Formats: sequence, structure tokens, C-alpha cells
Amino acid sequence: MANASEPFSAPATEKDIEILNLLELEDEARKVISKGPFGYISGGSGDELTLRENIAGFDDHMIVPRYLTGLDEPDISTELLGVKVDAPIFCPPMAAHGLAHVTAEAGSARGWGDGGCLYTMTTLSTLPIEEVVAASQKGPKWFQLYFAKDPGVNRELISRAKAAGATAIVFAVDLERPGNREADMRNNFHFPSSLGFPNVPGVRPGESLAEIMQVFKHGLEWDDLAFIREASGLPVIVKGLLSPADARDALDHGAAAIGVSNHGGRQLDNVPGSIVALPRIAQAVDGRIPIFLDGGVRRGVHVLEALALGASAVGVGRPTLYSLALGGWRGVHAMVEAVKREFALAMKLSGVAKVSDIRPDLIAPRSPVRRLSKGS
Amino acid sequence: MANASEPFSAPATEKDIEILNLLELEDEARKVISKGPFGYISGGSGDELTLRENIAGFDDHMIVPRYLTGLDEPDISTELLGVKVDAPIFCPPMAAHGLAHVTAEAGSARGWGDGGCLYTMTTLSTLPIEEVVAASQKGPKWFQLYFAKDPGVNRELISRAKAAGATAIVFAVDLERPGNREADMRNNFHFPSSLGFPNVPGVRPGESLAEIMQVFKHGLEWDDLAFIREASGLPVIVKGLLSPADARDALDHGAAAIGVSNHGGRQLDNVPGSIVALPRIAQAVDGRIPIFLDGGVRRGVHVLEALALGASAVGVGRPTLYSLALGGWRGVHAMVEAVKREFALAMKLSGVAKVSDIRPDLIAPRSPVRRLSKGS
Amino acid sequence: MANASEPFSAPATEKDIEILNLLELEDEARKVISKGPFGYISGGSGDELTLRENIAGFDDHMIVPRYLTGLDEPDISTELLGVKVDAPIFCPPMAAHGLAHVTAEAGSARGWGDGGCLYTMTTLSTLPIEEVVAASQKGPKWFQLYFAKDPGVNRELISRAKAAGATAIVFAVDLERPGNREADMRNNFHFPSSLGFPNVPGVRPGESLAEIMQVFKHGLEWDDLAFIREASGLPVIVKGLLSPADARDALDHGAAAIGVSNHGGRQLDNVPGSIVALPRIAQAVDGRIPIFLDGGVRRGVHVLEALALGASAVGVGRPTLYSLALGGWRGVHAMVEAVKREFALAMKLSGVAKVSDIRPDLIAPRSPVRRLSKGS
Amino acid sequence: MANASEPFSAPATEKDIEILNLLELEDEARKVISKGPFGYISGGSGDELTLRENIAGFDDHMIVPRYLTGLDEPDISTELLGVKVDAPIFCPPMAAHGLAHVTAEAGSARGWGDGGCLYTMTTLSTLPIEEVVAASQKGPKWFQLYFAKDPGVNRELISRAKAAGATAIVFAVDLERPGNREADMRNNFHFPSSLGFPNVPGVRPGESLAEIMQVFKHGLEWDDLAFIREASGLPVIVKGLLSPADARDALDHGAAAIGVSNHGGRQLDNVPGSIVALPRIAQAVDGRIPIFLDGGVRRGVHVLEALALGASAVGVGRPTLYSLALGGWRGVHAMVEAVKREFALAMKLSGVAKVSDIRPDLIAPRSPVRRLSKGS
Repeated sequence: MANASEPFSAPATEKDIEILNLLELEDEARKVISKGPFGYISGGSGDELTLRENIAGFDDHMIVPRYLTGLDEPDISTELLGVKVDAPIFCPPMAAHGLAHVTAEAGSARGWGDGGCLYTMTTLSTLPIEEVVAASQKGPKWFQLYFAKDPGVNRELISRAKAAGATAIVFAVDLERPGNREADMRNNFHFPSSLGFPNVPGVRPGESLAEIMQVFKHGLEWDDLAFIREASGLPVIVKGLLSPADARDALDHGAAAIGVSNHGGRQLDNVPGSIVALPRIAQAVDGRIPIFLDGGVRRGVHVLEALALGASAVGVGRPTLYSLALGGWRGVHAMVEAVKREFALAMKLSGVAKVSDIRPDLIAPRSPVRRLSKGS
Repeated sequence: MANASEPFSAPATEKDIEILNLLELEDEARKVISKGPFGYISGGSGDELTLRENIAGFDDHMIVPRYLTGLDEPDISTELLGVKVDAPIFCPPMAAHGLAHVTAEAGSARGWGDGGCLYTMTTLSTLPIEEVVAASQKGPKWFQLYFAKDPGVNRELISRAKAAGATAIVFAVDLERPGNREADMRNNFHFPSSLGFPNVPGVRPGESLAEIMQVFKHGLEWDDLAFIREASGLPVIVKGLLSPADARDALDHGAAAIGVSNHGGRQLDNVPGSIVALPRIAQAVDGRIPIFLDGGVRRGVHVLEALALGASAVGVGRPTLYSLALGGWRGVHAMVEAVKREFALAMKLSGVAKVSDIRPDLIAPRSPVRRLSKGS
Repeated sequence: MANASEPFSAPATEKDIEILNLLELEDEARKVISKGPFGYISGGSGDELTLRENIAGFDDHMIVPRYLTGLDEPDISTELLGVKVDAPIFCPPMAAHGLAHVTAEAGSARGWGDGGCLYTMTTLSTLPIEEVVAASQKGPKWFQLYFAKDPGVNRELISRAKAAGATAIVFAVDLERPGNREADMRNNFHFPSSLGFPNVPGVRPGESLAEIMQVFKHGLEWDDLAFIREASGLPVIVKGLLSPADARDALDHGAAAIGVSNHGGRQLDNVPGSIVALPRIAQAVDGRIPIFLDGGVRRGVHVLEALALGASAVGVGRPTLYSLALGGWRGVHAMVEAVKREFALAMKLSGVAKVSDIRPDLIAPRSPVRRLSKGS
Repeated sequence: MANASEPFSAPATEKDIEILNLLELEDEARKVISKGPFGYISGGSGDELTLRENIAGFDDHMIVPRYLTGLDEPDISTELLGVKVDAPIFCPPMAAHGLAHVTAEAGSARGWGDGGCLYTMTTLSTLPIEEVVAASQKGPKWFQLYFAKDPGVNRELISRAKAAGATAIVFAVDLERPGNREADMRNNFHFPSSLGFPNVPGVRPGESLAEIMQVFKHGLEWDDLAFIREASGLPVIVKGLLSPADARDALDHGAAAIGVSNHGGRQLDNVPGSIVALPRIAQAVDGRIPIFLDGGVRRGVHVLEALALGASAVGVGRPTLYSLALGGWRGVHAMVEAVKREFALAMKLSGVAKVSDIRPDLIAPRSPVRRLSKGS
């Protein structure tokens, strides 16, 4: 989308899709999503080093399976902040699902909800919170908050999210200003004028992300967490942390959980891949509150590995938008089921009966592989 | 084989083949084996990370040769669980050799037997145990057991294997359910309806591997090892272990040997390459029982390295099927001789006179190579 | 430029240029700069291992950002040897800007000066010191000295540099003789006969770099630093050091600052990348004098990382010549603003309010990434 | 050379050649040497892992240069086992130079001798020892001995070598039987019937290397070193060692020097690259006798690095044959001068005045480079 005034149309197909693996969704989605929006969704910042490490970092560990445990069928269900879910995976907050499909967040939420998994509603959704929830009665919901300059806006958003059934607030702390996302710069990407952000007064269609973010507070601080806790009365997940020191601060300020994330490699490039940052944060948190991770999760073994390293659940972001573009809510549902299937198989094949049994001794560091031989 | 009802024909050539190295066999075999069966044979699970590490992991170590030892011709023969063999290599269990050649397991067993090496008969062979043995009087035999739900089936299989001359039972513990093998999913692979699995009542031609595995017990446990030991009165090799803890458990439960294997990278992806898992298992076992390894062995130096790291012998799997496809039993025999020749040369050139002299001080860890220079 | 007598013409365009990132400038500049000069500017020595490590070495560390610090807009200004600058970046000494643009050093100096940043005048500039300064009243200046055999020449150069406003002397110690720069050998590169080096008597147009260096002292020693300090009365930066021992010697001999540099990978190949050498030098210097670094800086995150590892400011070399070729002083100015923008964003997104707050705990070593998965 | 009876003609050009770097010689030589002989010369064994590590291993270390040392021109001359040479480089033993050029060893010896460097005459030369020496009066000579089964042959060879002026015997211990050199197998390489090995009775033209080696003793032992020492009265270099234990044994048995070598990666694949093996051998030898290294030396910085890690001089093998093929003795001479020039420049640019000043503190281990960034 080189220009906000150019006509834009999102895919509208609704169908089951066959998913061999999540990695292949990207190339398929590229064929159906417009160039500008696809660049916005798929791109990272700078050299995309962090974007790549998000996935590649999972190769730093290997799974050491156990056998003859008597396990037939593992139980992949779990509980996230007091809410039962069918699997320790969730839809992390992403803006503007309307770029990927005409049903926008309604499609994504239904796909995740029908899969029995948690969906995160967002401040910058292209549908109002209420419509998202209406489309998806199944599956618990969280609400991600970008903290507005106007406290009234924040109170209103929180109030609407609670009314819509949100059981926790995700406080996104890492995007006051967008990273240098070169795909967006190259495409001069603005959100299409036909897409609005109806949850937030003051955000106008056709703006760039940098323009949109003017509505939100710059210079966020820990007191803002206090505000959200008080205004919502809900558990608050501080999302976007990569440093153990910040994790300790979050604990001290009453966070209910930590969201380890680098915003999909879209904010500051060269920060750690999420799975790379996780162990030191888990050590700092020491089990006192749950840790959720997003970034690079594409495989059932990735879910297993993240949980072994200390996460309670992991978000699966871009594949949500790709599967939404390819099949609407049915596409998302197929994607969620694919991850559940791979994760259940990974538990089965590594001899783990239930989610709470996934412990650090299930994995070991992998030494670099040399690849010197012809066959390597 | 996109569909079990499609006509299927396996290669039928019988001839000597020239083998420069085992790695090149794969591309040659791809030309003569049907797509579905070739995908089944060659593929791994998931991202095939473990499949690649099976071979690449051998580059993590280097051989430090000795000279002026007075050695002319090394003796590569050895003894495996009390049985003399011409070399510390064997044919590991693989299902359905009939996919690769019309002579199926009869060809493979004869090729290995004529090479003076041990062959493992399997539960899921496309020929009955008795026909496999009839085709190959030379060379000792083991029998690999998939543990059936019906104890009577297990007793019957063990009894037939003993009658056929099996000197040990290989208890395969890592495949109650197939890994996510994407080549098979892509090809919708089912075993051809013209191929049967005559050893096992209840397995029907034209099924997928997942369907076939319904006959076998899910939720295997250590007591099943006790059953097999008692029913057979033979040494039992517990095959498929990758964790030192499991190796210690195997010792405690009376295993006669450990089989380090990741099922050729076909079960859970992201587990250690076999050669990567070996050292910690060897440390746990501490020489009390032998360790056999399969996965990624393609070179004489690989055999040498695995033995230096604690294995007593190594299986050579896929190259068996590839050479079978290319030349029937004569192809397999040529492949076995090629490995023996490379291994003998490796012993000679590193100054080791006999198999029992291959010790850890023969190798050293290799540091990652930088490959920064033009010539690198 | 295969031959000094061949006609040579440098680009002359003056215009703003759009800069997505500095890395892409090289390919653009290749299109407008003649082959011989481009080889001279872009090439390294030998296998160009050090040239590549200059950039790649930045990947050895990752930035661990902090959030909720209350920071809105970071202050990227700083002070270098007592002089205020808008950002901790500067133009390092490079010879013969006339190869890249008809305005030569006048263009570069104006671009950097208008950006509020420090520019280093050089002994081997294609314009006289006085003309360079005349073109650029804004921004502080340093003067880089190649130490002539004739002490009178050195005194004269220093005196002119002081008169032109230089606030420090950069004593370049690493080029008595050029490295084996294969691009120059391949192109038989001589400086074009239409370009002179008016600052230095005895240097003739049309010479090779090796010929030019005959005017300068071979066998430089620490006493030469004493001479420069005395003759100039200015702080002297000893530039080109890579060894902690040399850094300690520089301290002992009264250097005002250390310049960590490998001459852009153009002198001895296989020496450390600048960012690789920095930590041990910072440890030796222990904060007693500032450290400046050049080599491989292409990103705002590189600036941040170098400062976290102990540098006070970093030079941005080749991109100066590339942007000069593409747009004259306006191109250089755009490049400087691009680096400032990326650096400000990196500070913002990592939660650092001012330059003096950039400390070692902002970064952490990055472990090698495996890149084994399909998506890696 | 698919067949010994096929006509064979070696290059015959004699001319100066321009050498930008030694690495590029291989591709040039490939154009003028017949396929079979080129495969024999350039190939390694097995997966050529060791062949590649011979060069790539040099990247494991970086040179940390010193400045302001007062050094103008370094002195690259040195003394090898009591003999003065112009540089610490030499021609290591290689068989059958006649494959590369009609002048065979006469050309190589003259090229090295005119460069003031040491040349190693060989048992398997295509010219008799006496003709080689006659063609090259300058430069000292060593003689490499393959130890024949017949003691009389060994005495005769040693006696002729002494008469021809050999000042040391190189006892090659690593080739009783050729490694699995796949290029030779692929090409069914036999030495051309027009080339003889006149030094050794019993070796017939048109044989393969394996056939030729039947003349020599299999089962070499340390007593054979005693024989050579006694029969020659000359210092004996035991060449082909890679293990510290063998180096200690060599010391105990009166070796005058150690030759660290893996036979150019042509014997056992997967042994350490020469530069990789060097440090542990240097530690074992602890300066009591000199160490010579060959394998992968292509750069002046490689020579510097090997000497810093404990070698007294390094051989430059394949580039000798490549430059011989391209220009006869003048080609070899140009190559020797190129290495000397690069090495002198490396000493100059790293601040080392003489060969005996090259010490371990000149280098440091290089950490793996990540290559994650776009520019990396």
C-alpha cells in the first residue's frame, strides 16, 4: 500500500486449509495479501537479526526424550491466570487484522476460540472489542492495552474490555514509537483509509503507525502499571520485557505475569530473540508469576522447549494472520489445531504426560553443528 | 504413493554397484524408487533438524591418528553380544524393505550376511521372518520387536524369531505413534496394497504407518521389557534411547544392551543427533553393557568415531535400502564391503590394530571452523 | 582507474538522497564511482576477513533493552575532548574524497558540519585544509596527520590545521606502507593525475598509495607522538591501535585518546574487527582517556553497542564517501541525519536517556545461532 | 587420466606469472593440467573435511598488531636445522611434479632455490635426485624418504641424497597406503606410463599410488627412525604427526624435528587441520626441537600465525605445483616471491622485526562470527 488513498481490499476466502507446517504459511499468505500490508505484517526492523533469531534461537536447545513411561495420550490442557485452556498457546496482540482478511479480528478470535485457546483483544483492532467478542463466544479473552495519553480513554477501554469478558490486561510497554521497519519505509506504508481503529478516539484512517502512536503516552513508567491495575481490578501482564532487571521490577510493581517479547522483531533490532531472553528472565522471576512468550513459535517442539525453559504458554502471532488471510476463521482454526497436534505429538514422543511435567531437564543446550561434511 | 490403490512396483535389478561413498547412494536411489516410498525412506520429521544433525554431528569430533606403531593390517572383526562378526557394523531394523526392491528383506539380509555382518529382522518386514532367514544363512541375526497389544502375538513373534536363529531381541521403544513426517503427509503415503506385513496378524495392506501402529501397545513401560526377557530368554537390546536417565533405567531393568537412536530423525524432531547423544549415555552406562548406535553413519571415520565415543557397533540404515534398490542383495553386499573397506582404512591410517583398541583418546573435540577466508 | 593517465571524472550531483539504511549505499555508489576509485574505497586487504568482521562482529553482542523508564525523547548529544557535538559519531580520516565527488572534502565536511558532528581533516585530502574549512563553518574539526619524514612539513601541517580550527590531532600510526589491497592491484590503481594532494609537498599526482607514502616516515615510534604533542599543543589521538599493550603505552606517552581502528580492513588482514578489539582495549584504558572507534559502523544499534563496550564516539567512514558520491554535501548530510535518527531510536527503544547512560550492562554476549531449522 | 595407457602431456610453458594471491592459482592451474592429474594434485580424501580445515583453521586466530615500534623493514630470513634461508617457508615433499610440468622437480627446485628457500627432494620424484639438484644450485635441500621394504634401497636413496647435498632427511610416516581419495577413484587415476619414478627400483610406470606403495614398508615403527638416523648421519624430521603423544615419542627416539602435516588432507579425512593440530604439539615439544608445518598455507598471515603458534617454518605445497604448471620454474619463483612479499608485509604491519620475535602473544583466539546482519 504505497499510499493510504489507494484502493485496498483484503482477502475474503473462508475455508479449511491444509497445514503441513506453520512455516509454509508465510509464502502462501504472501500471494493473497497486498504488498504494503504484507510487508507490515511479515517485516522486522533494521537487519531483521532479531526476527531471524526468534526462530533460529530454538535450535540452541535440544529435547532429550524419555521412553517406557507408560504414557499413552498426553494431556495438553493447562490453566493461564486461573482460566482453563485446551493448550498452552494463545493469540498474542497484533494490530489491524483487517489487513489480512475482511472478517478481521472476528475471524481470528473465532478461530482461536473454537480451538479452545485464549485470544488477546487489542487496542488497535480494526473491529470494536464488542464485535470481536460477539464473533467468538468460546475461548477466554485477554485485552491488550496501548496506554493512551488521555486517562479517560484508558479507563473507557478497560471498562469495555471487562464488559466484553477480558480476564486480564496485557500492558504493552515496548511500542511508544515504531522501530525502523524498512519494509514499511520502502512501501511508504500507511494503514488503508478504509480500515479504522474504532476502539480509540483520535486515531484516523490512513495514518502511518508513527502517526497513530501520537495518541498514546510517550515516556511510560511503572506508575502506569499501577493505574491499569487499579482501573481494571484484573491481573496485568507486562508485555515486551527482555531484561531480567525489568522482570524483577515488574514483580515489585505487582505485575501478574511477564510477557517476554520483542514485538516480533519489529521494534529494536539486535535485541535477543525471545527464546534467547527467556532463561535469564525465568531465573529472575523464579516461578513467582507466570511468564508468557511470543516470537518465532512455529513448531510443537518450540512450544515444548519454551515451556521447559520457563514459559507457561506461548503466543503464535504471524501464523494467525497468515492463516486468517488464507481461510478466514476456518484457516485460523486449522492453524491452531495444527499447533495443538504438533505439541501433543511432541509431548507424547518425549514422554511427558501433562503440561506441568514439562521441566528444564527435558532439554539440553545444543553445541554448534559444524556442517563440514558433504552430507551435512 | 499418493494412494494405496495406485499400482506400485519396486525395483528388481540385481547387480554389483560401484560405490564411491555412501552419501551418493541417496541421489541414485531417488531415481529408481517411487516418490511416495522414497519420501518414506529418506524423510525425517518436522524441520529435519535431527536428521541433519545425525550426519553433521560427526564433525564435532576429530580423529587424532597415531603413527609408527608397527601396524600393517588392522583386524576389524569384533564380537556383539557373544557373536563373532566381521566388522562392528550391522543392519538396524527398518520396516518394509519391499518398498525398495522386489526381494525385500531377503535381499538385504543376504547382502549383510554375505558381508559377515549382523542383520536385524523386523516385526514389520514385508517378508515373513522365515523367508528372510532362508535367503541368508550367513551372518548372525537379531530380531526387532514392536510390542503388540496382544501378548500372544508377542510370544508368537519371539518364538518364530528364536526358531529362525535370532540371538537377541531388539525392543524398539520409540515408535508408538509416527513423528510428523512431512514427506509422508505431503505424499499422503500409505503402504502399497501389494505389500503385506505377514509377521503380524491384524496389519492390513494399504494402511498408513499410523494405522498400522494401532496393533501395537501404546503406553509402553519397563514391565514390557521384563515380559520380553522372560518370553525370549535372549539378551534384549532397548533401542531408541537418547537420555542418560533412560540408559540407567535400562540397566536397572536388565537390558543386555542400549540402542542409541532417534529412529533416523523420523520421530521427534529436535532431539539430539545420535552421535551427539552418545557420550552422555556412554558415561551413564560406564561400560557395563554394550551400546549400539544408528543414525547418520555414512563413513568409515564415522564408525571409528562412534566406537571411540563408546559404541560397540553401529547400524547403517538408509544406505541399506538405497543399495538394495540399486542392486538387490549384490548392491547391499557392495555397500557393506564399502563400509568395511573405509573402516579398515580408517583404523589403519589412525594406527589402531583392533576394535577393542579404539578408545576415547583417539578423538578430540573440534572447535567451530570460521570459514571467513576466501579459501575456506 | 587502470592508469593514472586515463581521464577521470568524479560524480558531481548535489541532491538530497533517501536513505533506508547505510548498507545499501555501497551498491548505489558503485554505479556512479569509477571502477578503480571504487575498488580503492570499498576494498580491504587480503581475504577481506577483517573487513567483513568489522560489520559482522557487531552481531557478537545483543542489546538488552529497558522499559517503563519514563523516557520520552533521548538526548543524543555528547562532548568529545571538550567539544560539544550533536551525536557521538564523526567522520574518520579518509584520503582523497575527490575520488568520490568533485566537491571532495568540502562536500563531506559541510555534510557532517551541518549535521552538527565532528569532521576529521586529513593530510591526504584532495583539497587544501583551508578550503575544506571554508566550506564548512559548522561542526568541530580534528586534523589527521601522516607523519612526514621532514619535521618541517609536520610543523607546517600542524600549524595550518590549528589555524583552520582543529581542536585535536589524530596521529595515524598504522599506514607506513599499504596493506595488500587486491582490488587496487587488480585495477593497477593510481590516484588520477587530475587529483592532487595539495597539503603535502613532494606528493605527485598520478602516484600509487605506496609511492605517496615514501614522503612519510617509516619506522614510526613513540617519540613521534611527543613531537606532535609539543608542536601542536593540542590533544593527540593515537589512531589505529588494536592491542591492549599499545593502548597502555599510549597512555604512558600522553595520548589524549585512543583510536581503535584497523584502517577499514585495508592494512593487515586477519587482525580483529574493530568492535572485536574494543573490549580488551577498554579494559586496559579503564576510562582514563576516551576511546574512538571506526570500522563497520552502519547502524544506530552499532553506535549504541560500541558505546556500551567503551567507546566515546564512532567514526562512519565509507558511507561518507558513498553518500558524497550520490548527492554531494546534501547526500552526506542525509547520511549523517540517518545515523542520528537510527541512533536516537535505538536509545529510545532501549530506554537510555542520555549518552553517558550507555553502559556495559545494556548489552550481553550473543551465543552462536544454529540456523538448523527450515525457518532459520 | 582415466587410464595409464592414454596419452598424457604436461604443460610446458615457462614464464613469469602475475600472482595476486595463491588461492587463485588453483582455478588457473585447473585449466592447464589434465583432469586425472589435477584431481590427484588438488583432491583430498573422503568428504575433504580436513582439506578444508587446513585453510579454514587459520581463521580461528587473529593477529593483534603492535605499532610505533620503530620498525621500518623486517628481516624475514631464518635458520632451519642449521641452514640459513631467506624466509621460513619451504617446498614440502610432493610426488610426481611431472604431472604438472615437463620440467617436473627440476622446475620446482629451481623456483624455490632462486627464491633462497629450502626445497625437499622426494623419493617419488619423476626426475632422479641428481637431476633435480643439478637444476637448482641455489637454496638448501632436504630429502624425503618413503621407507622401502628393502633396506638396501633405503641406504642407496639416503646415500644419493647426501651426495646431492641433502642436509636433512624427512621421514614420511603417514602414507603406507593411500587415503580414500575419491577424485582418483572417480578418475581411475594411474600415473601416466610416460612418467617414471627413477629413484626407486621396482616402481613401474602406469601404476596407481596403491600399487606403487607396495614397494615400501607397511607397519612402520620407531626402529625405522633409528635406521635412518644411523644410515644418514643427518638430522631426521619425522613428518606427518598430528598427535602430541607421537611428538613426545619422536623426541624420545631422537627426531631432529617434527613435521606437522595431514598429507594435504589426502590421507585420513576428519583428522585435524594442520594449524589446528599445531598448538598441542608445540606444547608437547616445548621448544626442544623445531616444528615444521604444511597444509593450507596460502597467505603471508598464515605463515605469521603458524610461527606464532610454534612452527619454525611452513611448507607451501599445492601452490608449488599450480605455479609450476602455469609458468615452470619462473612460475614457482614468482609464487615464492609472492609469499615472501606477503609475509614481509605481515611482519611489517604487525610490528615484528625478525622471525625469532614472532611469539604467541602476537595472536589471540577469534570467537565465531555470527553473520546475522545484512552486511555480514
